[in-house]
Amino acid sequence: MPRDIPADSVGIVTPNLASFEQPLPLRSGRSLPRYDLMYETYGELNADKSNAILICHALSGHHHAAGYHSEQDDKPGWWDACIGPGKAIDTQRYFVVSLNNLGGCHGSTGPTSIDPETGERYGPNFPIMAVRDWVKSQARLADYLGIDCWHAVVGGSLGGMQALRWSIDYPARLKKCVVIASAPKLTAQNIGFNEVARQAITSDPDFHQGYYYQHNTLPKRGLSLARMLGHITYLSDDSMRDKFGRDLKTGKLSFDYGVDFEVESYLRYQGEIFSDKFDANSYLLMTKALDYFDPAADHGDDLSRCLNQSQCDFLVVSFSTDWRFNPSRSKEIVDALVRGQKSVSYLEIDAPQGHDAFLFPIPEYVGIVSGFLAKPSQGLSS
Amino acid sequence: MPRDIPADSVGIVTPNLASFEQPLPLRSGRSLPRYDLMYETYGELNADKSNAILICHALSGHHHAAGYHSEQDDKPGWWDACIGPGKAIDTQRYFVVSLNNLGGCHGSTGPTSIDPETGERYGPNFPIMAVRDWVKSQARLADYLGIDCWHAVVGGSLGGMQALRWSIDYPARLKKCVVIASAPKLTAQNIGFNEVARQAITSDPDFHQGYYYQHNTLPKRGLSLARMLGHITYLSDDSMRDKFGRDLKTGKLSFDYGVDFEVESYLRYQGEIFSDKFDANSYLLMTKALDYFDPAADHGDDLSRCLNQSQCDFLVVSFSTDWRFNPSRSKEIVDALVRGQKSVSYLEIDAPQGHDAFLFPIPEYVGIVSGFLAKPSQGLSS
Repeated sequence: MPRDIPADSVGIVTPNLASFEQPLPLRSGRSLPRYDLMYETYGELNADKSNAILICHALSGHHHAAGYHSEQDDKPGWWDACIGPGKAIDTQRYFVVSLNNLGGCHGSTGPTSIDPETGERYGPNFPIMAVRDWVKSQARLADYLGIDCWHAVVGGSLGGMQALRWSIDYPARLKKCVVIASAPKLTAQNIGFNEVARQAITSDPDFHQGYYYQHNTLPKRGLSLARMLGHITYLSDDSMRDKFGRDLKTGKLSFDYGVDFEVESYLRYQGEIFSDKFDANSYLLMTKALDYFDPAADHGDDLSRCLNQSQCDFLVVSFSTDWRFNPSRSKEIVDALVRGQKSVSYLEIDAPQGHDAFLFPIPEYVGIVSGFLAKPSQGLSS
Repeated sequence: MPRDIPADSVGIVTPNLASFEQPLPLRSGRSLPRYDLMYETYGELNADKSNAILICHALSGHHHAAGYHSEQDDKPGWWDACIGPGKAIDTQRYFVVSLNNLGGCHGSTGPTSIDPETGERYGPNFPIMAVRDWVKSQARLADYLGIDCWHAVVGGSLGGMQALRWSIDYPARLKKCVVIASAPKLTAQNIGFNEVARQAITSDPDFHQGYYYQHNTLPKRGLSLARMLGHITYLSDDSMRDKFGRDLKTGKLSFDYGVDFEVESYLRYQGEIFSDKFDANSYLLMTKALDYFDPAADHGDDLSRCLNQSQCDFLVVSFSTDWRFNPSRSKEIVDALVRGQKSVSYLEIDAPQGHDAFLFPIPEYVGIVSGFLAKPSQGLSS
């Protein structure tokens, strides 16, 4: 049955594929001989191409950020709550570009793609991408679309790291930078969680050192575990209490090793559906990009110095119950920008949803983001 | 080479085995036909048997809490920092009893033991133990040792739950109850982490539904993952930063999927050594005992009412950076005791070590515990 598309939706959207035949040199020293980027756009690019906003995705994200792919589609894009007519990122004013990053598994070149040098899937040989590599590929997408300067680059979590990297590597190509629920680098605890996820995947006997395609297997158990663990860290203790508490699945304790609590059932289900649709090699790659991100490392661990060339206005947003990237991590970015006398606004939103809060249209958050995007830019003369 | 036993150590200790031929009825409705308890004692029981302290262990603990098993032993018992002559639990004053709980894998009856009804190892058929079952078995150990009333029952984490359960089920059999880094019940987040650990173990193809002994395999990968995850949750974000930061194992990023950061190497090592020595079925059982603990559930979720019969003095201790059982969880216990007009002291220790802090001889903590144990009891006339 066709769904009623809500009035504040961007409606039915069709992904596009852009192909790049020029090699992309990478942080690792390797290079991609050629690549494709899958992307979507929402809204209209204006005549002087000054209203374009780039959306950067997080660990398990992709190009499909808003709208529906068909009338039968049961779920909209992953950030539909914040992108659309009248929403935080208003498609009546802005031309929004959202892509699947290299190394992903939703249409852009990644581990499941054919390596032109071997004629086989890249698999585990796909180069590890650094955030700067993604940003470079995104800059080429901007060239392809004829966009010299983004009105804004926006991202949450790993997406926020890309937004920050834009301001460092292409200071003249964005007017505004929105860094949400992010961090200037991961802590040992963050890396530890990622390492458990990677070990879950690579120790799955169906992983076959990443050559599972050739073995007609998928490391579903490991990927499912990785997702279950990730999911816990995206939620707050409070939100899990509100959502599940100690509610029992069947009303009583089993006294066997089956499912007792609702939260167990929920996590298993989340792991199961994720492991059906995400590529394990992509998951490993995304976690490494997170771990490796540390732009200040090239500048004597001085983030302020690292951001010295940035010219854009910054908005940094954190959420009170986000313990994966807690507000103090956002404040590190803000402190570095303030020390560098950059234009920066900071907002800590009181929200119960934990790290996932950035996906929700929390009124204060929507108001600040839309206001920041609308106001004349200060940092860069246009 | 023989080690020099430190002067404040209990020295060389020898475990004892107590056998119980009377069946133990369990919370699950099942019963253990017979069982053994492995235990150690430190210090001397006084003439009127009034100076005995019971130590209850946490998830991966056992009876060997203090001292050495031989001069060649490279590590002392798990709580040696707090048990010994002149230490927080002073063996010059007290007779300390520490046992391996039922369902464990260090000598007490558990999944690796022979089921007398089948002549085979219990394996996954070993009954799931509730905290109250352990406490009942501990009360029988007290009978066996001729101890009518403990001077104190002491435990951290899951051990604190046992101490609390003692005060509920045997109010006349303890004068003092020390509940450290614990909680009156797990949150959904706690249960979620336990469930990921269980799924890691049970989805390991070497688990064989728990019958791995018969297959001459061990689910080492799964158990290792469970331990890695557990380990992260026992440490604080700060302590991991202090201990590892973003230090690299080889001085540079690998850009492959090997070990990059010290923290990865450390967690892998911890997982590896644990999976060599702990039984997977015991691990599952211990996590279920944690999940199931909720003494107030039988009393309309009113913890104060649940503790109504308790007569002992309570000391509740939490640690500022413990996010697995954060101080607010300890305060729930304190609030219930205060509402019930019980004798309770509460201390939140400012300590960087996270949940593991309870194992360390932090001076303020040692002072409070030893002072509490030494002062005349108020709650129970003796």
